[in-house]
Amino acid sequence: MNKFMLVKETILLIGGSGFIGSNLIDFVLKNNDFSDYKFVVLSRSLKREPSNNVVYITGDFTDKTVLINLFSKWNFTKVFHFATSTTPLTSGNNILCDINGNLIATIGLLDIMKEFECKSIVYLSSGGAVYGEKKLEKISENEICNPVSSYGVVKLTIENYIRLYQKQNGINYLILRVSNPFGKFHSSEKQGVINIAIRRALLSEPVEIWGDGLQSKDYIFVDDLVKVIFALVEQKVLNKTINVGSGETHQLNKILEIIKIYMPNLKVNYVGSKTTDVKDFCLDVSVMKSFYKLKLVDMNDAIQKTILFERERLN
Amino acid sequence: MNKFMLVKETILLIGGSGFIGSNLIDFVLKNNDFSDYKFVVLSRSLKREPSNNVVYITGDFTDKTVLINLFSKWNFTKVFHFATSTTPLTSGNNILCDINGNLIATIGLLDIMKEFECKSIVYLSSGGAVYGEKKLEKISENEICNPVSSYGVVKLTIENYIRLYQKQNGINYLILRVSNPFGKFHSSEKQGVINIAIRRALLSEPVEIWGDGLQSKDYIFVDDLVKVIFALVEQKVLNKTINVGSGETHQLNKILEIIKIYMPNLKVNYVGSKTTDVKDFCLDVSVMKSFYKLKLVDMNDAIQKTILFERERLN
Repeated sequence: MNKFMLVKETILLIGGSGFIGSNLIDFVLKNNDFSDYKFVVLSRSLKREPSNNVVYITGDFTDKTVLINLFSKWNFTKVFHFATSTTPLTSGNNILCDINGNLIATIGLLDIMKEFECKSIVYLSSGGAVYGEKKLEKISENEICNPVSSYGVVKLTIENYIRLYQKQNGINYLILRVSNPFGKFHSSEKQGVINIAIRRALLSEPVEIWGDGLQSKDYIFVDDLVKVIFALVEQKVLNKTINVGSGETHQLNKILEIIKIYMPNLKVNYVGSKTTDVKDFCLDVSVMKSFYKLKLVDMNDAIQKTILFERERLN
Repeated sequence: MNKFMLVKETILLIGGSGFIGSNLIDFVLKNNDFSDYKFVVLSRSLKREPSNNVVYITGDFTDKTVLINLFSKWNFTKVFHFATSTTPLTSGNNILCDINGNLIATIGLLDIMKEFECKSIVYLSSGGAVYGEKKLEKISENEICNPVSSYGVVKLTIENYIRLYQKQNGINYLILRVSNPFGKFHSSEKQGVINIAIRRALLSEPVEIWGDGLQSKDYIFVDDLVKVIFALVEQKVLNKTINVGSGETHQLNKILEIIKIYMPNLKVNYVGSKTTDVKDFCLDVSVMKSFYKLKLVDMNDAIQKTILFERERLN
C-alpha cells in the first residue's frame, strides 16, 4: 500500500489462519480493489510475511489482554470474527470448553469493541448447525432454530448476544449463516467432507461417510463464499442475519462420484450417522441474492480446483 | 407421609425459595394429592421446618459438590429447575455472571443428571424474555426467538442445551415458557409489576412504571401457574416446550386501575421505558390448553388475593 493512500477500513480478522480466514486474506492479496483495506490478522498459529496491507499477529482472541493491546494500537473500523475452536462433532465432548472458548471469548471481544468504540462486526455463523434438522426444502433466515450440537447452540447464542449488543451498544453486525464450504486452504480432519474425501483419495485411504451418503446438502465453493462476504461488506449491509450458500443441494454420493471422475481410486466406507450431523439441508439464499447476484462456480470446476489445491499441497 | 407409603416421585426442586418454587411447595403441602411426592428443596437462603414429604437443603446449585451430594443421597426421579440469578434488567450489567450463574451451572446440573441417570427435568423458562419484541397478537411456541436481554438469551440457550441433552443422553424435559406471574410469595423489587405496585401502595410510595402504561401483557396468577405445572407433570407431558400463560392480555394501566379500586392511594410515576423490557405480548397457550383446560382465577379476585397476601406479610 502506498503510504499516502487513505485507509478506508482497518479490519481485525480473528481466526485468520482458519479455512475461510486464509481464503479471505488470499483474496485480498490478489485483488487490487482492496488495497485501501488494512487487515490485522490474529491467529493462534500461523505467522506469515506481512504484506503492504496485511499484518499478522500471533495470539489467542480468548485472551483479553491480547485484544486490548490490538485495539489500543489500531483504530479498527471493523472486526471479522471467523474463529471457532470446535466442530459440531467435537463440541459435545466438552461443552464447557465450547462455551468458554467461543461464547465467553466473544462476549469479551464485544465488550472491548464497545470500550474502544469499534462499531461493526462480521460474524461467521453456521447455516447447518444453527438451524438443525429441518423437513423444509429451503431454510430461510426466519426459520426457528433447533441446533443439534453444542457447536450450533453456541453459534446461535453468540448470534443472539451480537444482536443484543447492537440494540444496547450500537455495534452494527452482519451475521452470515454459511452452508458447507469447501476448497483451498481447508485443513480440518473433522468437518468438510469434500476436502477430506479428496485428501483420503490422494493418500489412497478410504473416506468415512456418516450414513448412506444419500443426504443432500448445500455446499459452497470457498471462492464464491469470499466474494459474497466482500460484496455484502462493500454494500454496507448492516444488522442483518443472512444465509450464505449456493442455494442448491447436492447429494453426497453424487459429489463423491464427481471426485471419482478425477480420482478413480477414491474408496468410501459408510459408517453410522451422528446425531450432531444435520442430514438434509438447503439454505434459502434469496436475501443474499437480493444484495449480490452470485454466479456460482460450476460444481465440477470447483471440485477440480480443490483437487488441484490438495494435490499441490501434498507435494 | 406414612412411611409405608410408596413414593411415586422424588423431586429435586432447585430455586425452592423463589417466587414460583415457594408457591409450588405451598401447593404440595396443602394438597393431599401429592402426598406420594417427595420434594428435596434446594435454596441458597430459606430453611423451613421439614414436613412429611418436603425436605429443605441450604446450598447453591452452581456448586457441583452440593449437587453431587444430593444426587448421591437421593434417587431423584425428576428435577424441577426454577432457579435464576438475574432479571431481564439486571442481566445486562454482568453478562459473564449471567452465563456462569445460570447457563454453566445448568450444564453442570445436566451432566450430574446424566451421571446419576436422572431422566427428567422441568425447566421454567420465560415467555416474555425468550421471544423478545413481537408484532404478533399471539406468540406460539413455533415463533422465532429474538431475546432483548441477556436474561432472555441465557434462558433460550439453557433451553437449547436441555433439548440437546434429551437427544444425546435421553434426559426428558418439559420446558415451560411462563408469561408474567403474580401473586403470593412474590418478593422481587426488580420484576413483577403487580406485586411491586401493591407493595408500594401499602407503603404509600409511588410505583415506577416503564413507559406510558399502555403496554399490554399476558399476566398469570401464580395459583393458576402451579396448577398447570402439576397438571402437565401428572399427565407425563414429555419433551415439549410449552407456553404457560393466561392467554389474555391486560393493559398495565387497566391493572393499576383494578389495584386502585382496593388501594385508592396508589400513585404512579411513569418513567422511560427499558430496551430489555418486552412491551406488548400475549402467549398463544393453545398447546397448554390441549393438555389442561385451565379455568383462570378472575383477574379482580387474583389481584384482591395478592393484596391480602402483601398486606398480611407487611403486618
